[in-house]
Amino acid sequence: MASVRIREAEEGDCGDILGLIRELAEFEKLSDQVKISEEALRADGFGENPFYHCLVAESLPAHAEPRGPLVGFGLYYFIYSTWKGRSVYLEDIYVKPEYRGQGIGSKIIKKVAEVGLDKGCSHFRLAVLDWNQRAMNLYKALGAQDLTEVEGWHSFCFKGEAMRKLAGK
Amino acid sequence: MASVRIREAEEGDCGDILGLIRELAEFEKLSDQVKISEEALRADGFGENPFYHCLVAESLPAHAEPRGPLVGFGLYYFIYSTWKGRSVYLEDIYVKPEYRGQGIGSKIIKKVAEVGLDKGCSHFRLAVLDWNQRAMNLYKALGAQDLTEVEGWHSFCFKGEAMRKLAGK
Repeated sequence: MASVRIREAEEGDCGDILGLIRELAEFEKLSDQVKISEEALRADGFGENPFYHCLVAESLPAHAEPRGPLVGFGLYYFIYSTWKGRSVYLEDIYVKPEYRGQGIGSKIIKKVAEVGLDKGCSHFRLAVLDWNQRAMNLYKALGAQDLTEVEGWHSFCFKGEAMRKLAGK
Repeated sequence: MASVRIREAEEGDCGDILGLIRELAEFEKLSDQVKISEEALRADGFGENPFYHCLVAESLPAHAEPRGPLVGFGLYYFIYSTWKGRSVYLEDIYVKPEYRGQGIGSKIIKKVAEVGLDKGCSHFRLAVLDWNQRAMNLYKALGAQDLTEVEGWHSFCFKGEAMRKLAGK
């Protein structure tokens, strides 16, 4: 089993991260919904006021090569609660199927918690689809609460056209 | 009916915003859960890399006073979708009971949509509790989709102790 390390993404990783994003979307047969580009990922994650941060799981090659292939990622950002202040949000997490069962996903989640605490966050939020029982079980086993179940939170979204109509544009 | 204008919050508004946050929490009989301070609101919203942005609804006084009382607020921030890129998230919105029914909430929501579009966001997300049918109906009437209902999204959260345990701290 190749050794895998979790590290912060660098701008040069954006092409590989986009590959992983597309791989996940293809698996879910929703690849036509991926509108993001490598250029957007570079501009939005590595400028002065980044819109997101990203951790990558890198499989270390046996030889002394500088870089191994990326086998997973976790994209997160900081959010804010009016009651509790700074919080961290894990938007997306993916590990390639052939690298699952090694605890890589848990390592990424733990690292996000660590980064969040270092930044003064008191909460760590994420969202999961109800058919993804495997992920739900993992998050619960790690100590998360299902706020939709426990408190009744529903996620709402104004998409493209609805948002423009709302803004009168 | 006093005229109300929606404007960006300034650092000096933080005390009044905290008052509105507490008022909402008291109404919900959950005021012991409000841990935020005026100092945190000042530091986190008005530094170089703000964790949040805020719109306030200000009731304009009849006379030529510089400032009227704040009667509502909307706290938002920018988030990121791996598929769609930049998005905006409305974390909390509140209008004092005696100022409801004048469309102030809708004006705040529309302004967030406008600010989001100006920043290149393609989506505008928010969350609502399932007992708040009035808010759910408003968001749906304005064009939002209930992603929990339509797609099955559940919100998860690692709170305080669970988060520290996760990070091994």
